[in-house]
Amino acid sequence: MENGTVNGYEMDTPKNITIKGILSLLMESIDENNHSRSVISLGMGDPTAHSCFHTTHVAPEAVVDALQSGKFNGYAPTVGLPQTRRAIAEHLSRDLPYKLSSDDVFITSGCTQAIDVALAMLARPGANILLPRPGFPIYELCAAFRHLEVRHFDLLPEKGWEVDLDTIEALADQNTVAVVIINPGNPCGNVYSYQHLKKIAETAEKLKVLVIADEVYGHLVFGRNPFVPMGVFGSIVPVLTLGSLSKRWIVPGWRLGWFATSDPSGMFRNPKVVERIKKYFDILGGPATFIQAAVPGILELTDEVFFKKTINILRHSSDICFDGLKEIPCISCPYKPEGSMAMMMKLNLSLLEDISDDIDFCFKLAREELVIILPGTAVGLKNWLRITFAADPVALEEALGRVKSFCLRHSKQFES
Amino acid sequence: MENGTVNGYEMDTPKNITIKGILSLLMESIDENNHSRSVISLGMGDPTAHSCFHTTHVAPEAVVDALQSGKFNGYAPTVGLPQTRRAIAEHLSRDLPYKLSSDDVFITSGCTQAIDVALAMLARPGANILLPRPGFPIYELCAAFRHLEVRHFDLLPEKGWEVDLDTIEALADQNTVAVVIINPGNPCGNVYSYQHLKKIAETAEKLKVLVIADEVYGHLVFGRNPFVPMGVFGSIVPVLTLGSLSKRWIVPGWRLGWFATSDPSGMFRNPKVVERIKKYFDILGGPATFIQAAVPGILELTDEVFFKKTINILRHSSDICFDGLKEIPCISCPYKPEGSMAMMMKLNLSLLEDISDDIDFCFKLAREELVIILPGTAVGLKNWLRITFAADPVALEEALGRVKSFCLRHSKQFES
Repeated sequence: MENGTVNGYEMDTPKNITIKGILSLLMESIDENNHSRSVISLGMGDPTAHSCFHTTHVAPEAVVDALQSGKFNGYAPTVGLPQTRRAIAEHLSRDLPYKLSSDDVFITSGCTQAIDVALAMLARPGANILLPRPGFPIYELCAAFRHLEVRHFDLLPEKGWEVDLDTIEALADQNTVAVVIINPGNPCGNVYSYQHLKKIAETAEKLKVLVIADEVYGHLVFGRNPFVPMGVFGSIVPVLTLGSLSKRWIVPGWRLGWFATSDPSGMFRNPKVVERIKKYFDILGGPATFIQAAVPGILELTDEVFFKKTINILRHSSDICFDGLKEIPCISCPYKPEGSMAMMMKLNLSLLEDISDDIDFCFKLAREELVIILPGTAVGLKNWLRITFAADPVALEEALGRVKSFCLRHSKQFES
Repeated sequence: MENGTVNGYEMDTPKNITIKGILSLLMESIDENNHSRSVISLGMGDPTAHSCFHTTHVAPEAVVDALQSGKFNGYAPTVGLPQTRRAIAEHLSRDLPYKLSSDDVFITSGCTQAIDVALAMLARPGANILLPRPGFPIYELCAAFRHLEVRHFDLLPEKGWEVDLDTIEALADQNTVAVVIINPGNPCGNVYSYQHLKKIAETAEKLKVLVIADEVYGHLVFGRNPFVPMGVFGSIVPVLTLGSLSKRWIVPGWRLGWFATSDPSGMFRNPKVVERIKKYFDILGGPATFIQAAVPGILELTDEVFFKKTINILRHSSDICFDGLKEIPCISCPYKPEGSMAMMMKLNLSLLEDISDDIDFCFKLAREELVIILPGTAVGLKNWLRITFAADPVALEEALGRVKSFCLRHSKQFES
């Protein structure tokens, strides 16, 4: 066994960029001692970092009750506690034209583990999966570890980041197992219409592939389109819905997610498919039993007022962000976000003097202005930027002011 | 997409028996309405099912404090909170001749996820891993999902379930990546001596394979041999140590485990290896941040008296079990357990009239006596049984009485 190898074989590590990896590098590049100003991060999709976002009192109370009962220190079934599966099935069914049963819901350690389950379940030699560009890079990383080939289809900024359905048809072949849709969108802040989602379902049905619907930002919408779960089209095409408490309840660190099979016509009730899913769950560590036990109470007791408050803050902060960016010449935003917590903006490098690309922009911005923004390269779009607007309005305005100063300072000086 | 297939391809599901799967079938086979007696399960390694085992008050208090602080609702780094990694590194280092650093410890969702990390990290085309027989079937299931070939070496009942080192040498080849040791032993209740562990390390070093040391039952010993962590031999061979709060703190449902690299000479500090481990953690959902945040306090404040109480109960219940089984002619126990929560006993089928094998024995026992015991087939030894003695003494004695009645009722009638 030599260094870096096992028995002389190189370990095969995916080459993917990760959001957390690049944000760490940006953070490390800042020499905080040299500055009187504080660092403002608009890089991560973690609203708990900002004091204006906090969970409802109902949620920790339910967890404390479950823990202090002493009844939930033991193992849960690996697919999740029955009462938790039932509560989430009922919760999701409210927005569907049919009822999910407990058996359709599997409890995961956050939406991240739900992504892994979905991709690992579909992986087999030669298989490929269709992922959106821009997208969420955990999919690419997970596909690399599970040996699924990735093919990218574009989201179209000029059409509200809708899916390019023609590309999907061109990319798919008999080895394509699924198409991934993130709605409400990360990183674009888009919210798809009922009609567009229906077209996606029809395209997937035509190509005989599943739809994996990442709805981790489900219900967090504040624009024209209401949130429509992909499962609404479960009678057209089988849908795997991924979700969690993380974003809507503002508790991403609780790692309480789910993987729900929406397929009224039955593929996911085939005993072989169910057996494979259940066996896979046997090798996963799921979320803590006492957190699972709190879920029925959390879903039942959370007030609509709490959700509305979060949405009002997001609407306000996305407005601040969009309006502030309009003032900056070298940045353009093709789409005003209508959901989720992030948006994409395009860099016009021809207006900048000494910035070579989005990564260079972000490192110089971090060092000079102590503002962290994610380079678009991390989500698949070079020379774009992803900004998370789930931030305190004051900090957001301060950050946008710093971005503007930075851009003006690095602008090409045109002769007057 | 047809039923049971994706695009006409059969999904490839591992054929492995799982402990939870077979215990569910045993439980379902009981018609509780027909009986006045209650079901006694000695099948699962979950002590929380029995009222004599409960965690120390320190543990839930630390979790409640972390939760109510409101500081730990956000994401932790995917490899774990720094203070949690540091506390576990210090905790493990107490028993080692060198110090682990925070960077050597990765936080996992229970020991189950630590097993998956270890096997997934080592998987590559053609690789094989050496697993003990009898063993813990999650390893086999995980190896099947991660495409690692499994080769079994025997544990020797007549030698206190020691590893058959000659078999290990015969099985290993240039594609062997690791040998797995479970100590204290599940399912055998064995505790290996310093000398035997050293021989295992030397054998692994000679074969140029890692040792994966599953120490989920670490410190739970009550016989002649003290618990010696495999990491003690980290200077001989690189060791991956897997552990958790689950058993020693009696909170298996909290899903707080770890994966520690013990390798003073450095393979696990190679940047490529570290990068691969870190990227793998990016696709896992780890344990809840607030539970991680409670770990330093739990490790610091737990009283020795709490551990001693658990060990005294285990010693007492293992005595009851071993002595009770000696009274039953068709069952023999080659080894008195000295650690963990389980032991193996051998069925002498030639003394039984209408029992075809261990599985038949366990199903008939469940139906007739409402006692659940795991067939040895589930852990790799046909016509043996695994009994979990982590149970209330009164329930354990009642269960053993029922097993005895069952065996006598099914004994061959010899002519007098």
